[in-house]
Amino acid sequence: MNTGLLSPVWPGTGMDTLLADEAWVEAMLSVEVALARTQARLGVIPAAAVAPIAEAAGSAHLDVADLAVRARGAGNPVVELVSELTAAVARLDEGAAEFVHRGATSQDILDSATMVLAARALRRVDADLCRVANALARLADDHRNTPMAGRTLTQHAVPTTFGLKAAGWLTLVLDALERLRRTALPVQVGGAAGTLAAYVEYAKAAGVPAEGHALALTEGVAAELGLPVPAAPWHTQRTPVLDLGWVCAAVTGALGKLGLDVLGASRTEVGEVAEPAGGSSSAMPQKRNPVLSALLVSAARQAPAYAAILAQSMLAEDERSGGGWQSEWQPLRESLLLAGGAAHTAAELVEGLRVFPDRLAVNLGLSGGLIVTERVNVVLAPVLGKAAAKKLLGEIAARPGSFADRLRDIPELRDDLDELLDPANYLGAAGELVDRVLARKATLA
Amino acid sequence: MNTGLLSPVWPGTGMDTLLADEAWVEAMLSVEVALARTQARLGVIPAAAVAPIAEAAGSAHLDVADLAVRARGAGNPVVELVSELTAAVARLDEGAAEFVHRGATSQDILDSATMVLAARALRRVDADLCRVANALARLADDHRNTPMAGRTLTQHAVPTTFGLKAAGWLTLVLDALERLRRTALPVQVGGAAGTLAAYVEYAKAAGVPAEGHALALTEGVAAELGLPVPAAPWHTQRTPVLDLGWVCAAVTGALGKLGLDVLGASRTEVGEVAEPAGGSSSAMPQKRNPVLSALLVSAARQAPAYAAILAQSMLAEDERSGGGWQSEWQPLRESLLLAGGAAHTAAELVEGLRVFPDRLAVNLGLSGGLIVTERVNVVLAPVLGKAAAKKLLGEIAARPGSFADRLRDIPELRDDLDELLDPANYLGAAGELVDRVLARKATLA
Amino acid sequence: MNTGLLSPVWPGTGMDTLLADEAWVEAMLSVEVALARTQARLGVIPAAAVAPIAEAAGSAHLDVADLAVRARGAGNPVVELVSELTAAVARLDEGAAEFVHRGATSQDILDSATMVLAARALRRVDADLCRVANALARLADDHRNTPMAGRTLTQHAVPTTFGLKAAGWLTLVLDALERLRRTALPVQVGGAAGTLAAYVEYAKAAGVPAEGHALALTEGVAAELGLPVPAAPWHTQRTPVLDLGWVCAAVTGALGKLGLDVLGASRTEVGEVAEPAGGSSSAMPQKRNPVLSALLVSAARQAPAYAAILAQSMLAEDERSGGGWQSEWQPLRESLLLAGGAAHTAAELVEGLRVFPDRLAVNLGLSGGLIVTERVNVVLAPVLGKAAAKKLLGEIAARPGSFADRLRDIPELRDDLDELLDPANYLGAAGELVDRVLARKATLA
Amino acid sequence: MNTGLLSPVWPGTGMDTLLADEAWVEAMLSVEVALARTQARLGVIPAAAVAPIAEAAGSAHLDVADLAVRARGAGNPVVELVSELTAAVARLDEGAAEFVHRGATSQDILDSATMVLAARALRRVDADLCRVANALARLADDHRNTPMAGRTLTQHAVPTTFGLKAAGWLTLVLDALERLRRTALPVQVGGAAGTLAAYVEYAKAAGVPAEGHALALTEGVAAELGLPVPAAPWHTQRTPVLDLGWVCAAVTGALGKLGLDVLGASRTEVGEVAEPAGGSSSAMPQKRNPVLSALLVSAARQAPAYAAILAQSMLAEDERSGGGWQSEWQPLRESLLLAGGAAHTAAELVEGLRVFPDRLAVNLGLSGGLIVTERVNVVLAPVLGKAAAKKLLGEIAARPGSFADRLRDIPELRDDLDELLDPANYLGAAGELVDRVLARKATLA
Repeated sequence: MNTGLLSPVWPGTGMDTLLADEAWVEAMLSVEVALARTQARLGVIPAAAVAPIAEAAGSAHLDVADLAVRARGAGNPVVELVSELTAAVARLDEGAAEFVHRGATSQDILDSATMVLAARALRRVDADLCRVANALARLADDHRNTPMAGRTLTQHAVPTTFGLKAAGWLTLVLDALERLRRTALPVQVGGAAGTLAAYVEYAKAAGVPAEGHALALTEGVAAELGLPVPAAPWHTQRTPVLDLGWVCAAVTGALGKLGLDVLGASRTEVGEVAEPAGGSSSAMPQKRNPVLSALLVSAARQAPAYAAILAQSMLAEDERSGGGWQSEWQPLRESLLLAGGAAHTAAELVEGLRVFPDRLAVNLGLSGGLIVTERVNVVLAPVLGKAAAKKLLGEIAARPGSFADRLRDIPELRDDLDELLDPANYLGAAGELVDRVLARKATLA
Repeated sequence: MNTGLLSPVWPGTGMDTLLADEAWVEAMLSVEVALARTQARLGVIPAAAVAPIAEAAGSAHLDVADLAVRARGAGNPVVELVSELTAAVARLDEGAAEFVHRGATSQDILDSATMVLAARALRRVDADLCRVANALARLADDHRNTPMAGRTLTQHAVPTTFGLKAAGWLTLVLDALERLRRTALPVQVGGAAGTLAAYVEYAKAAGVPAEGHALALTEGVAAELGLPVPAAPWHTQRTPVLDLGWVCAAVTGALGKLGLDVLGASRTEVGEVAEPAGGSSSAMPQKRNPVLSALLVSAARQAPAYAAILAQSMLAEDERSGGGWQSEWQPLRESLLLAGGAAHTAAELVEGLRVFPDRLAVNLGLSGGLIVTERVNVVLAPVLGKAAAKKLLGEIAARPGSFADRLRDIPELRDDLDELLDPANYLGAAGELVDRVLARKATLA
Repeated sequence: MNTGLLSPVWPGTGMDTLLADEAWVEAMLSVEVALARTQARLGVIPAAAVAPIAEAAGSAHLDVADLAVRARGAGNPVVELVSELTAAVARLDEGAAEFVHRGATSQDILDSATMVLAARALRRVDADLCRVANALARLADDHRNTPMAGRTLTQHAVPTTFGLKAAGWLTLVLDALERLRRTALPVQVGGAAGTLAAYVEYAKAAGVPAEGHALALTEGVAAELGLPVPAAPWHTQRTPVLDLGWVCAAVTGALGKLGLDVLGASRTEVGEVAEPAGGSSSAMPQKRNPVLSALLVSAARQAPAYAAILAQSMLAEDERSGGGWQSEWQPLRESLLLAGGAAHTAAELVEGLRVFPDRLAVNLGLSGGLIVTERVNVVLAPVLGKAAAKKLLGEIAARPGSFADRLRDIPELRDDLDELLDPANYLGAAGELVDRVLARKATLA
Repeated sequence: MNTGLLSPVWPGTGMDTLLADEAWVEAMLSVEVALARTQARLGVIPAAAVAPIAEAAGSAHLDVADLAVRARGAGNPVVELVSELTAAVARLDEGAAEFVHRGATSQDILDSATMVLAARALRRVDADLCRVANALARLADDHRNTPMAGRTLTQHAVPTTFGLKAAGWLTLVLDALERLRRTALPVQVGGAAGTLAAYVEYAKAAGVPAEGHALALTEGVAAELGLPVPAAPWHTQRTPVLDLGWVCAAVTGALGKLGLDVLGASRTEVGEVAEPAGGSSSAMPQKRNPVLSALLVSAARQAPAYAAILAQSMLAEDERSGGGWQSEWQPLRESLLLAGGAAHTAAELVEGLRVFPDRLAVNLGLSGGLIVTERVNVVLAPVLGKAAAKKLLGEIAARPGSFADRLRDIPELRDDLDELLDPANYLGAAGELVDRVLARKATLA
């Protein structure tokens, strides 16, 4: 059995129980109960049948591993689950057992259950992303004016601030939150092939008018489960599945960038930040590894591929796909586990992230002013012409020795060279940008 | 050179020129012009510099293949493009050449150009999806009550209607349209490391106040290019790139499902629909292949993988990624080509799709009533108990000979057996569902 | 916990226990024992330490779910596992506990354990693929001369034989077997950063010569575990991981094609084959779904994405990757589960596949001879010219009514029209090709 | 049109012309010629027809962009290409035109042409990988004993050597070479549905015995094209396509790891290596970006997704897939372009890579001996017990100040502390491992 030993980003984060096989069984049973409640309210089944169905569902102790094996028979776990549930209801009330799963199809139960669990998981992710956003907003605010080296293609480029760096991480978290919140996870009520025919037929048999019954039933089940109502069943219209893969990739990608930057800034030679604790090594006593960041990156390296599988789910033939549907379930769970684990892990990381302004300053000064060559160019280009200035500065930069000293030979620069070469004087609009990101954050988290 | 010989879903659809290398060069030049215009308006560069820059940009005849080779030097095409543009401006006005690309960085130019082209491509996709939606809405309406076999896991399940099938295709197209329309494609104005430092420095040098300049400049360039303004530069905050991959996968996935269903319904043994023309074969004179559908499926099989690459772009270290950025461009173009080609192809397919109601009827009757076994079960289950009814019907279904004849032995069914076994009487809420999808369509396309 | 409820292709196939978290713990412990045994044999640790280590490892009853949570501390489960093992050994023999994990690093243990399990899984896959190959060879042989419709782009093309179809499936299984058998799964013995420094240092401390120790140790551990010896440690040379993803995709792809064809041939309108049992439906008593085929396709739709993650593992920086390594484990397990589950499922499918020659014949005759239009063309082209012949036949094919009757108007064809239009006379080299595939099969399975 | 502007890893490397649309046209024509030659030799068509066909094919000047658009009609370019070729032959010799494409199908021509080009591309990749291997072998040999910091999870771990690092890169290149060389790229000769029926029928019409003709024809065409003969046609047995995706991912992955390490070692704070030239920036005169490495990484980030598409090609239904086949071509070309471009780029990088032993030494000493804590542990563990030793060293490592000074307080260490803390004394088997990798290299490149 898989308890997450090979996926350390999520065990113990709460996502494991939220998305366990047991949770799926519980959610599928809750869909059966929601269906029975709605059908009773609409007069399709006797009101008296609801209590035994609900009781049996609530107290079912199914062996999930056994159910998993039996699920091979029908290619999904619902047939056997319904058989178990029916037997359990029958033990309480023989007559009520007749009304279990009335008019339903496997896909209604499993898809709706999946949406219930996904919605629950996304709420958890939302909460953790808000924690991350708050911690990042504090970092951005605290370090709004803390200069540091900006780097492009691994090389010192021009100065930036740690505040803007944190604001950049925050931007991605806000992007992910926005996408997460507009993800619609609709209920599935379609019957065998999406026409709700058996539901309607049972309604008619019970004297309930057929017209409008499909919508009333769908709205009822949706309300019981807290899910929105789609325009039509989506047995082979899998946009919600595509969306889930995408939003999970947005979450893990956002946090993966954060992890990647923390890894880079934690390098022994860089040393600008450190994780709250640091992971140990089985071999080296001195090691404090940026483990949380590594876990964030590990999630971000996996999720896009899962999202690709889920996007392929759109290729679902007929009214139910043979193979397409079955290929979604595990990647969907894994996506949610990774997103949830990453959000939880990121909160732990960011809330305790240690920033070392001294090292930021040391690194910023490493190049002896080369990091503001662009600024020197702004001064020289209008005087020498932009091509000549760029060429001259390129040559000077490549020479050994102190950059400042070499610049002193250029008459146009002599006066204010210290001011000119001070990285803290070349931060552009970093502060304003931080403010804009914080203002956006205030509307979202 | 690649003109689409190996990707027949898009040549000749207009996407090829829209997204050619030449278009990228043109778009990058237009970003340089937008920058110059905005800087002139804000007083950072002389107004007189704009005309020569715009003229040179507009009349540049660059050898894109040569530029592609030279792009290896800097790892992106902008450095060499700026060099060409500067020389061209200098030929018109030596002084104006100084103001080309002022304060800018390669990424500003290339990212903004990409967004301009992506926005243009998405508008084209939108228009074609609207054509598809309109044609599908007509089909759904025309065939609102045309019964046909619903199929799950390749087997006849229960009846549905061709109208509901078309409404299902329409649902996916509407999903794609919604996602497409909320895709934000922001301008990129960040300078070397996202602080806009050189832009601000040049402004100060020209006596323009630094405060607020970053925002004013960004808004100005954005307005010139018709793009929205982001809260901050997104050099390594690649959500827009992730979004583009996802929306293209949504488009191709939606249309791929349509193609898959048309392929299935076109099978020689099924014959329920035919493509408007049908593709020829080099070997077999009788062949009329469902080629457009095959092209739709081919796009849908590729796009999720491209989307995965684009989602991986989120893993971008520092203030500009070494490798991450460069890995986006071609998959992004390919995604847009596939989405645009598929939308165009789908319009051609759906507007001319031929539906054969006779074959729908023949196939629906193939099983001699087995297709409404679920309905018979609705009648029998309350009488015999659901388990006994299902078992009995399962046995009868498996026996050779006429299903109707065998059912006549069951006393409970005798009276209304013809009515009961008529598939047209077991369409559930198909008509209502079509109406709901059409109502949704009216709000979007 | 995940017992496979959402991935019905593998529960109950034996792969679930083979690749469970518990199996990983057991395998990691077996690597620790193999290391101790080898070090004792080489004189690095006392011979007396081996028994308690082996005994503790063999009788450890670890709570894997707890270990999974604790694995977050170091970002991998080995640190905590070693701590548990050391304590268990200490309870048996305090002195021996000192020699647990001597000189080792987490990656040596986990990578070697993964290779042990992967090798075990591949052996199982090999055996199941041989079952599949044998059953397919029988089908190919039995139906060497059974004509059926060959189909391209869903349309009847020219006749083929069921034997050649089975030989095509067999070809893919043989391809997968070949690739599987050349997959090298090397032992990992590298120490903290791949130099084996601590191993060598402990050897020197015990008076064992440093020279050659690294190789001797690696060979010893490899022999204990039944794994090959690599030229050097592969901490961040992840070709074996890439290979595993690829071979699993080869296996699932091979069997997915088989599943796809069985699904197509099982369509109600086609009916040429049936699965041994057929899956039931929760709603429709008459249904016998081709469930095994759907499971095969579901595996084939997932595995390529996992393989892509595993191929991305090549991007592993330094001497151990932060994030890259951690992103491999779960996709690697999932790949093996899918491949193993698919191989087992395919054996069940193919050994019981029912072929219906009557339906093959009926379908072959459906087009009234159109399926041999290519053959008619071979006769007419030399007479009329190839363009004229193709045009004429294309027109005749498109007309309503009997193809044979229409052909009778062409003087060149009149004499032998029945012979000419008999699909059984136009099988090309189908029989010879079957023989060649069977000959290849004889060398492999 | 796409000349590689958005994919700077391959323009100008020779792969662009090798894999251009024009090259595909030329290769398809060469397959038609090979077929005619073989059929003439076997007596199926007149010997006199070969010369005009070869001449027309050799002098055809087709408008590939136009052909690309027309390819939409049949869903592949062959039908229109054959029409053009036939017309060109007819202009030379009306009678010979009858024998163009005799018995063939589109897939035979396109698949064989693709294999011809892929084989040509792989030969180029092989040659460039050999250049890379040779340069890396020199680096490994030159720096066999140059100590440097080994890093795991971004932190200094234990010492290694630059020679072993180069040997690690070399290992991956050798792995890629091995896989490349065992990639079989078979000819495709199957006719309309894989039975070669029309080929055989034309043979019979020409009085050539049917028996054995299929094999003779296949062997003949294969010999003409320099491709191996498969056991049977592989129209929907796409293992060769899967293999190509995988081998390209192996190549780009191997070189991506190299690029990733060079990027890391080029960081301003690390500075251990530099690219031969370094790329310029449009903004910053001082910049020398590790552009070649970035290009290598960009290829490695894309290829696995393309490989996943190609692996999905295995899911090809019937005797020719509608959509599956068409989805292969462009990803296959792109994979080869990336692999070829990366190999060429890597050769340029490695042959000119500058290594700075001074910086290697400075970085190695940065931690003041902490990097050999593991070694100190080897000394202390036997004395204090391994748990106590690890705990003590962990505490000492975490304290500020000089590690060496703090260690002097431990009596067991005092004597040989300088020797103990010298990283050059703790290189384990690094040298021996380099030798083993070089020995392996000698057998391959």
